Amino acid sequence: MRLVQLAELLKAELHGDPELDITGVASIKTARSSDLVFAEDAAVLRDALSSPAGAIIVSSKINASAGDTGKAVLVAVNPKLAFARAAKLLRSTEVEAGIHPTAQIAPDVVRGRHIAVAAYAVIEAGAHIGDESTIGSGAVIGHGVKLGRACRIYPRVVIYPGTELGDRVVVHAGAVLGSDGFGYVRDNESGEYTQFPQQGRLIIEDDVEIGANTTIDRGALEETRIARGVKIDNLVHVGHNVRVERNVVIAAQTGISGSCVIGAGAVVGGQVGIGDHAEIGEGVILGSGSGVLTHKKLKGAGIVHWGRPARPLHQYLKELAALARLGEVKQDRPRKDPPKKAEMKPRHLSTSK
Amino acid sequence: MRLVQLAELLKAELHGDPELDITGVASIKTARSSDLVFAEDAAVLRDALSSPAGAIIVSSKINASAGDTGKAVLVAVNPKLAFARAAKLLRSTEVEAGIHPTAQIAPDVVRGRHIAVAAYAVIEAGAHIGDESTIGSGAVIGHGVKLGRACRIYPRVVIYPGTELGDRVVVHAGAVLGSDGFGYVRDNESGEYTQFPQQGRLIIEDDVEIGANTTIDRGALEETRIARGVKIDNLVHVGHNVRVERNVVIAAQTGISGSCVIGAGAVVGGQVGIGDHAEIGEGVILGSGSGVLTHKKLKGAGIVHWGRPARPLHQYLKELAALARLGEVKQDRPRKDPPKKAEMKPRHLSTSK
Amino acid sequence: MRLVQLAELLKAELHGDPELDITGVASIKTARSSDLVFAEDAAVLRDALSSPAGAIIVSSKINASAGDTGKAVLVAVNPKLAFARAAKLLRSTEVEAGIHPTAQIAPDVVRGRHIAVAAYAVIEAGAHIGDESTIGSGAVIGHGVKLGRACRIYPRVVIYPGTELGDRVVVHAGAVLGSDGFGYVRDNESGEYTQFPQQGRLIIEDDVEIGANTTIDRGALEETRIARGVKIDNLVHVGHNVRVERNVVIAAQTGISGSCVIGAGAVVGGQVGIGDHAEIGEGVILGSGSGVLTHKKLKGAGIVHWGRPARPLHQYLKELAALARLGEVKQDRPRKDPPKKAEMKPRHLSTSK
Repeated sequence: MRLVQLAELLKAELHGDPELDITGVASIKTARSSDLVFAEDAAVLRDALSSPAGAIIVSSKINASAGDTGKAVLVAVNPKLAFARAAKLLRSTEVEAGIHPTAQIAPDVVRGRHIAVAAYAVIEAGAHIGDESTIGSGAVIGHGVKLGRACRIYPRVVIYPGTELGDRVVVHAGAVLGSDGFGYVRDNESGEYTQFPQQGRLIIEDDVEIGANTTIDRGALEETRIARGVKIDNLVHVGHNVRVERNVVIAAQTGISGSCVIGAGAVVGGQVGIGDHAEIGEGVILGSGSGVLTHKKLKGAGIVHWGRPARPLHQYLKELAALARLGEVKQDRPRKDPPKKAEMKPRHLSTSK
Repeated sequence: MRLVQLAELLKAELHGDPELDITGVASIKTARSSDLVFAEDAAVLRDALSSPAGAIIVSSKINASAGDTGKAVLVAVNPKLAFARAAKLLRSTEVEAGIHPTAQIAPDVVRGRHIAVAAYAVIEAGAHIGDESTIGSGAVIGHGVKLGRACRIYPRVVIYPGTELGDRVVVHAGAVLGSDGFGYVRDNESGEYTQFPQQGRLIIEDDVEIGANTTIDRGALEETRIARGVKIDNLVHVGHNVRVERNVVIAAQTGISGSCVIGAGAVVGGQVGIGDHAEIGEGVILGSGSGVLTHKKLKGAGIVHWGRPARPLHQYLKELAALARLGEVKQDRPRKDPPKKAEMKPRHLSTSK
Repeated sequence: MRLVQLAELLKAELHGDPELDITGVASIKTARSSDLVFAEDAAVLRDALSSPAGAIIVSSKINASAGDTGKAVLVAVNPKLAFARAAKLLRSTEVEAGIHPTAQIAPDVVRGRHIAVAAYAVIEAGAHIGDESTIGSGAVIGHGVKLGRACRIYPRVVIYPGTELGDRVVVHAGAVLGSDGFGYVRDNESGEYTQFPQQGRLIIEDDVEIGANTTIDRGALEETRIARGVKIDNLVHVGHNVRVERNVVIAAQTGISGSCVIGAGAVVGGQVGIGDHAEIGEGVILGSGSGVLTHKKLKGAGIVHWGRPARPLHQYLKELAALARLGEVKQDRPRKDPPKKAEMKPRHLSTSK
C-alpha cells in the first residue's frame, strides 16, 4: 500500500515520500525497509530512526522529525491505535476461498460467497455460513448454527447446535461455544443430582473475538449473550444465561458464573472469578485474581476493584498495608492452627506413593 | 406425553386436564401452550398463570390454584427437581443411531446395539462401545477404552488408551480424559526433570457428567477414579491418582492435585485449588476460589470452608471483617514495600513494546 | 531388559540375579514378578519385599538387604529418579511408524524417517516433521511449522503456522500452540478495541513437555520462547512475548501474562497468576495460587513466595497468623459492609431464575 493511502485511512499527517510502498508492520528490532513501526516517545523514536524501517508512526505529542534519515513519518493522536489499524489494513487475507473435498457439509447448509472450509471440518444440517467466512480444519459447526459475514473459525473449534454468531467474529482453536451450562438440582433424599434443563441458546454479536480453549455455555432456558466488540482471552469460562455487554475485555482464565451481567466497557483482569447473578457495572475495572460474590453488584465506571472478595482498590491497598504491618509485630500468643512451613509446597509437583 | 403419565412418573399430584399433551419444558417468558413451567413461590406462580404455558409444577408449600385460567397444575414436594426430571423425560434423543462412513473404527472394536458414531471419529483397536452410546464428530477413543451403555461423547473429546467409562456418562466437547499426570523427578545435579511413570488408568463410573475442555489425568502407577453421579463443570483439572467419591459436584476451573480424595457429596465451588494428597471429607462445602494445602484434611458434612488457605466460614468472615476495620484506621507508620497503585493493572491488557 | 544392563544404565549397585528379565515398572500393590519397584525408606522396603515384584530400587541411605526373599536389589543415590529413568528405558515405543491414508499432508512437507501420522491429521504446506516424530489423530500442524526429532504430538493438538518445536517435545491432547496473544488498543472515543498485531512466533526448545488443553500464544511482533527442559501441566496459559527459561516447571491452571520472564529452574505452583512484564528470578519458588503484580521482579533461588500479591513465605505465614488472631478477638465495632453468610455460596451451582 502506498504511504499516502495509509495516511489517509489512518487520518494521520504525512511527512516524507507519499509513494513509499509499505507491506507490513514490525517491531523496531525486526523491521525491514518496507515496514511501518511506531514510537510513543522520543527515546523510542531515536531507535526507530536508526532502524531499517521505512516509516514511523509517532505521537502528535512529540516533536518528531526524521532529520536527514530519509524516513517517512506519520503523526497520529494515538500512534499505537494507528499502528494496530495499519496492521489490519496491511494484513493479507491468509485463507483462500474454497471447500476442501474432505469437508462434510450437510446438503441444506446455506453457503455464502467466497467461504473457505478446511479439511475434515463438519457442518451439520440447517447451518448458515455467511459470505467470506472461513472454517478451520476439524472444526464442528452444529445443527442450525448461524455464522455472519467474514467470521474466522480456527481449527478444532466446536459450536453446539443453535448458536448464532454475528459478523467478523474470530474464534481461536479449541474453543467450545454453546455447551450445556452447569445447573443441577439435588435430590435431598438420595444425594443425587439431576441436570436442570440446558436447552437455551448462545448469541454472539459482531466483532467479538474469543481465545483458544475458552468455553461459553448456552442459556439454560433462555440465552447467553456476548455483545458487540467483546474480546475474550484464552481458557476463559462463561456460564449459562450470562450477558456480557458491549466492548468488554476479559483476560485469560477468568470464570463468570451463571446469570451474571457484565456492563459495557468493563475491564476484567485474568483469573477473576465472578459468582452467579452478580452484576458488574459499566466501565468497572476488576483487577486480576479478584473474586466477586454471588448476587453482588459493583458500580462505578473507571473504578478499580481488587481482591477476594473484591473491594475498591484504595481499601484493598490499605488492608494489605495494615496486614503487612501486623505481620511485622512480634506476637506472644501463638495461633491455634497455623499452616506449617512443610505444608506450603507448590501443588502438583509431588508424585504419589 | 400426556400430563397424567408425566404426573405419575414424577409422583406429583395432578389438578386439571389429564389428557393435556406436553412436549417440552420452558421458562415462563418463552413458554408455549404445550410447555411445562415451574413456580417455586406465589409471585412466580402469578406470572406463570398469565403466561401461555399449558401446565405448571408448583411447590406443595404454596396454596396453588389455577383459578379459571384453564391451566393444569402439578403439585410436587421439590418442584425444581420435578421440573428437571420432566425435562429429561420429555427430551427426545437427538442423535440417530448409525455409523458415519468416514468414522475410523478398528476391526476388533466391540460395537453395542444402536450406537452412533459421527464423521471423522476415530476408535482404536480393542475399544468397546456399549449399547446406545454416541460418539461425536472428531472424537478420539484410544486403544482398549471401554464405554458403557448410553454414554454421550461430544465432538472432539479425546479419551486416552485404557480409560473405562460406566453407563450414561456425558463428556462435553474438547474434554481430555486419561492424559499423563504431572509427575517429575528432579536431578539435583543437572536441574533436569525426568517424568515419573504415568502408566496407570482412569476409571469413570456411571452417571458422571464432564464439562467442556476439562482434563482428567490417569493414575501414575495405579488409578484415578471418578465415582458414580459426580458432576464436573468446564475447564476443571483433576490430577493423577485422585479419587472423587459419589455425587460430588465440582464447579468450573477448579484444580485438584495428585492423590487427593474428595469425599461423597462434597460441593466444590469454582476456581478452587486443592494441594496434593489433601482429603476433603464427605459433604464438605468449599467456597469458590478457596485453596486447600497439601496433605490437609478438611472434615464436616455441610460445613463451609472458604479462603486461601481454606478455613471455616465463620472464621474467614471474622478475619475479613477484622481486616476491613484495620484498613479503616489511619496509620502513622508506612509499610516498607506496599504495592503501588500503578502496579495494580489488570493483567494481560497491555501489549508489549 | 536384563537387570545387569539396567543397573549399568542407571549407575546403580546390583545385588541379586543379574540375568533377571525386567519388563516394566509398577507400584508395590500392582507389581508382578517381572516388575521393578522402588523403596525410599525401610517401611516401604518391607512392603516391597513381601510383594511379587522381581526387583527393588532402594536408597543408598537405607541398609537394604533382600534377606532370603530371592529378590534383586538395586542401590541408587536417588531411587525415585532411578525408578523414573528405568521406566523410560523400559517403555516400548507405543506408536508404529506409518502414514494413515486419511492424513492430509501437503505435497511439499518434509517428512523425516520413521514418522507416524494418524487418521485425519492435517499437515499444511511448508511444514517439516523430524525423524521418528508422531502426530496423533486429528492434530493440525499449520503452515511452515517445524518439528524436531522424536516429538510426540497427541490427538487434536493445534499448532499455528510458523511455530517451531525442538527435539523430543511432548504435547498432550487439545493443547493449542502459537495462537494470537491478547493485545488490544482501545479507541477512547468509541470505546472499541482493535487488535494489536499478533504476528510473531512461538519457539519451543528440546525436551519440553506440555499438558492437555494448555494454550501458549505466539509473540506479538517478536517471539514467545519456551526453553529446553521446561515442563508445563494441563490448562496452563502462557501469553505473548513470554520467555520461560531452562528447566522451569509450571503446574496446572497457572497463567503467565504477556512479556514475562521466568528464570531457569523456577518452580511455579498451580493456579498462579503472573502479571505482564513481571520477572521471576532463577530458581524462585511460587506457591500455588500466588499472584505476581505487573512489572514486579522476584528474586532468590530456592526462596518461596506465596499469596496474592506474592511475598516471601515467612512474611506470608506471619500475616496469616496475625489475621487469624485478629479474627479471634471480639469486636465492638461492626464492619461497614461485611459479606453476608448468604452471599457465600459456592459459585455455579444455582441455576437461573
